[in-house]
Amino acid sequence: VKDSLPIGVFDSGLGGLTVLEELRRALPREDFVYLGDVARLPYGTKSGNVVRRYAQRCVDFLLGQPVKAVIIACNTATAVALESVREQTQVPVYGVIHAGAFAGQEATSNGRILVLATESTVRSEAYLRAFHSLSDKNLVEQIACPLLVPLAEAGWFDHPITKEVIRTYLAQAKHKDYDTVVLGCTHYPLLLPSFRAVMGEEVRLVHSGAALARELEQELTRRSLVQSGGAPGKLRFFTTDPVSSHVPIVSTLFGSSVEFELVDL
Amino acid sequence: VKDSLPIGVFDSGLGGLTVLEELRRALPREDFVYLGDVARLPYGTKSGNVVRRYAQRCVDFLLGQPVKAVIIACNTATAVALESVREQTQVPVYGVIHAGAFAGQEATSNGRILVLATESTVRSEAYLRAFHSLSDKNLVEQIACPLLVPLAEAGWFDHPITKEVIRTYLAQAKHKDYDTVVLGCTHYPLLLPSFRAVMGEEVRLVHSGAALARELEQELTRRSLVQSGGAPGKLRFFTTDPVSSHVPIVSTLFGSSVEFELVDL
Repeated sequence: VKDSLPIGVFDSGLGGLTVLEELRRALPREDFVYLGDVARLPYGTKSGNVVRRYAQRCVDFLLGQPVKAVIIACNTATAVALESVREQTQVPVYGVIHAGAFAGQEATSNGRILVLATESTVRSEAYLRAFHSLSDKNLVEQIACPLLVPLAEAGWFDHPITKEVIRTYLAQAKHKDYDTVVLGCTHYPLLLPSFRAVMGEEVRLVHSGAALARELEQELTRRSLVQSGGAPGKLRFFTTDPVSSHVPIVSTLFGSSVEFELVDL
Repeated sequence: VKDSLPIGVFDSGLGGLTVLEELRRALPREDFVYLGDVARLPYGTKSGNVVRRYAQRCVDFLLGQPVKAVIIACNTATAVALESVREQTQVPVYGVIHAGAFAGQEATSNGRILVLATESTVRSEAYLRAFHSLSDKNLVEQIACPLLVPLAEAGWFDHPITKEVIRTYLAQAKHKDYDTVVLGCTHYPLLLPSFRAVMGEEVRLVHSGAALARELEQELTRRSLVQSGGAPGKLRFFTTDPVSSHVPIVSTLFGSSVEFELVDL
């Protein structure tokens, strides 16, 4: 594996672009290849077997580029497919859940943490296991928020209905004394203005992007895989179904100049 | 083809159960086989080519049962795949869009019609063509409502947020004098209480289920395919990914005694 190779990032759709954005900011000289499996989204409602099969196809495509590392920028795929993908892959593979739990652990003062995620991520209990592996002193509660992805995809980032939906979900929490909320889905950081408006400034909001970028930087350094060239990194975007760069997620994060190349998996 | 065979019904998910419910009510002695392609849902965000491929696989599965007729209980699949499926299928194939337009045409007095549907159904303009084939005197406007399917799947059938979302979509209408609203997605009839609350009693709300049941009954009679036995019809349910009978759509329409058989397409 060579340091000049790009880093591969995939997600079931475009939510993983929030992770790519953080990785690019932390590692500006690295090249990235992004794959959005939009033909098969959402993963969040599908069974573990189906998600593992889809994730492996995405990884195989990225390895064919080739890439020096793979980031699973999708909580659902990380929750159910990280282990099986790692077993079948030579290059290092990182998921978003451990990084999200690490960020939550660093942020909390009282050890009361609320995780918001898709139904399948909640059902997998992957966040509960990740938090438990870091400390046994936390009280971690999960709430499934199936409407937040469609709201992000509609571009209703800062919208009265989004705020009302978030309020409705938060009202389901059994323990109200959480000081930290983990955004356990890569779409959710797009809704930050609505989260902030509902939750006020006392509660800490964390997501995996920044923590994952730090983890990746350390790992690349340890393996001597940091890009040695000095030029700004290049980005390349693939999707499994046509995507317009005018969709709100893309234009918000990367402007409208992004070009998606179509790939049939 | 024999009259004793069941009628095949498929949808990208479980929304088509609203159509099955209407068909079963109108044709209580017929047997039905339902297939929900939940592993690949939603069709509404995918390209025409992908949807045509998925729809053909569903039809091939139903023909293997075998069945005497196929109902595409999905507006998106009807919009983009009805013609290609018909070309490759020996038994009669019916979609929901013509029936929905027919119901709208019968309901309107002033010829002002609003069609609410998924983004891909709107983009296909299939409702505009279907209305135009019935009359050139109507003014038909379409509005894409991507959040309504997730709201129906969340079971928020009669919910303040659902009403607010419907209000937000209706406010996008350029022509406000419509007297008829077509629910152009098989999920939307589940939200009827919310629609009724927002729109009042003057506006007529139509969906394709009842009209499709009438069309199917006439066609079966014409082709001498009406079930000649006197016993109540049987139902069989298949899905491409595991589904709980406790999800709100299923329990609302069919109670919790429904059993889904898993099929890998």
